[in-house]
Amino acid sequence: MSAADFELYMRERAELVGARLIEEITNDAIPATLQEAMLYSLAAGGKRLRPILLLAVLEAFGKPQVLGMPAACAIEMIHTYSLIHDDLPGMDNDDLRRGRPTNHKVYGEATAILAGDALLTHAFETVCRTMEAGVPAARVVQIVQELSVFAGAQGMVGGQCADMEGENRSLTLEELQYIHRHKTGDLLVFCVRAGALLGDASAEQLDALTTYAERIGLAFQIQDDILDVVGDEAKIGKPVGSDEERQKSTYPGLLGLDESRRLLVCAIAEAHEALSVAGLPNDAMLRALADFIMNRDH
Amino acid sequence: MSAADFELYMRERAELVGARLIEEITNDAIPATLQEAMLYSLAAGGKRLRPILLLAVLEAFGKPQVLGMPAACAIEMIHTYSLIHDDLPGMDNDDLRRGRPTNHKVYGEATAILAGDALLTHAFETVCRTMEAGVPAARVVQIVQELSVFAGAQGMVGGQCADMEGENRSLTLEELQYIHRHKTGDLLVFCVRAGALLGDASAEQLDALTTYAERIGLAFQIQDDILDVVGDEAKIGKPVGSDEERQKSTYPGLLGLDESRRLLVCAIAEAHEALSVAGLPNDAMLRALADFIMNRDH
Repeated sequence: MSAADFELYMRERAELVGARLIEEITNDAIPATLQEAMLYSLAAGGKRLRPILLLAVLEAFGKPQVLGMPAACAIEMIHTYSLIHDDLPGMDNDDLRRGRPTNHKVYGEATAILAGDALLTHAFETVCRTMEAGVPAARVVQIVQELSVFAGAQGMVGGQCADMEGENRSLTLEELQYIHRHKTGDLLVFCVRAGALLGDASAEQLDALTTYAERIGLAFQIQDDILDVVGDEAKIGKPVGSDEERQKSTYPGLLGLDESRRLLVCAIAEAHEALSVAGLPNDAMLRALADFIMNRDH
Repeated sequence: MSAADFELYMRERAELVGARLIEEITNDAIPATLQEAMLYSLAAGGKRLRPILLLAVLEAFGKPQVLGMPAACAIEMIHTYSLIHDDLPGMDNDDLRRGRPTNHKVYGEATAILAGDALLTHAFETVCRTMEAGVPAARVVQIVQELSVFAGAQGMVGGQCADMEGENRSLTLEELQYIHRHKTGDLLVFCVRAGALLGDASAEQLDALTTYAERIGLAFQIQDDILDVVGDEAKIGKPVGSDEERQKSTYPGLLGLDESRRLLVCAIAEAHEALSVAGLPNDAMLRALADFIMNRDH
């Protein structure tokens, strides 16, 4: 897949998901301020990497993306709520997110807390709409359950808690891996598994794709850490060396830059291998996404 | 039903639900601090009115309560998360809840935010366990969806947002009703509807029971407001007249004490009438719960 094709694919799907998200939240039954605060952070966008990953898995199975749209929107709502709550004064106390004032800076702390709660809750209503695409109810229940597990206390929220507790001290490699596996990895694993479940994956394919998701999640984090050391400030949007300055434990910090790069290449190779095991009809986009994660410069 | 029987019923079920809640959260895969913070607020207990209401509806249909236990625990998790977030410095900034330090006072603000997020997320995993009791998957999806709607932006969270926006100014009766219908009423409506759905209610029974839930929700709030004017401080656990002091809009404030009492009696009469329409095999406990809400002194 050419770089131009890849970019076009990403942009088209990001727009599709963005439009559907706005539709999902536009509802007269929601108080106006709350709705505005929810939309503000949803519209702030970003790459929509998670929903696109979910849709790409579905397409790799040759299934229509309409099947995955509710789950794709749900995961973006969960990702967005987690950013709103992360930025709160009681958490990271950030004033800016993607170059715009954070939710609580615009709407106040109370509304930001509630907007996060509302997005998290709405994700479950949204994922249930998968029923409307004709997916069997038992499959929908399984996806709801996985969303809850991967986003919750054993998943993303657990990872955030461990991350917070590990601040201002050096972590072991094991602790660092735990944090990333859950804080960022688990939502990616959900995306891939939800796509696979909707694509009628066999048990073997589901396992192989779970491995794919775990490896790209690991690669994503290693590349993040590497960019913080050697990246282009203008592209990554924050000062190079900010992790080191905040004494944050990172892969380059724990293993050195060379070993981190080796690990990154290895994780992506394993992701490709897992795709070969899964043997899907059309996995070009999943392979391109893996390479994108390794090669991205921001 | 005698007062002693009623109290015994309430106590037994509260203990059952409390034990099951602890079981649900006790899980080695959850980081220790997060787990502790979640359990701290869940164990703080209270009357467990919501889960008991759900179980009582199920029993009124002559169904075993094991069918409703996952949904009952889920609703208590949602209620508990909403209290944790409500108490945060960015919201009501309360130091005490049911006579104990609030979650953020014990675990810090960041952990309290995450414990609330984790409980909210876990509620959906828990309600999915209804599958294990042999309930058809399509029914489970419907319950998940209703939980999300009644607890979310159109429901409880929407009510909290409206409540917050209405602080420090007088509300119209319509605004007051909107707030209470959503902030406290919607979770009660969910409890009753979930019990009815699990009890294989007909469409007519579901409608009648929804009316029952709306009326006891209204009665609950009116009695709360009345107790704040004429209650016994030792029993209600806060100074009498605190609403007036904080210039909070209330039913007695807007309508006077006599008219509020008339509305209360009327709401409970309508709740009884709705039960007669539903015509359930065994609704003694639902009738006793309605009377309890009207007659409670704390």
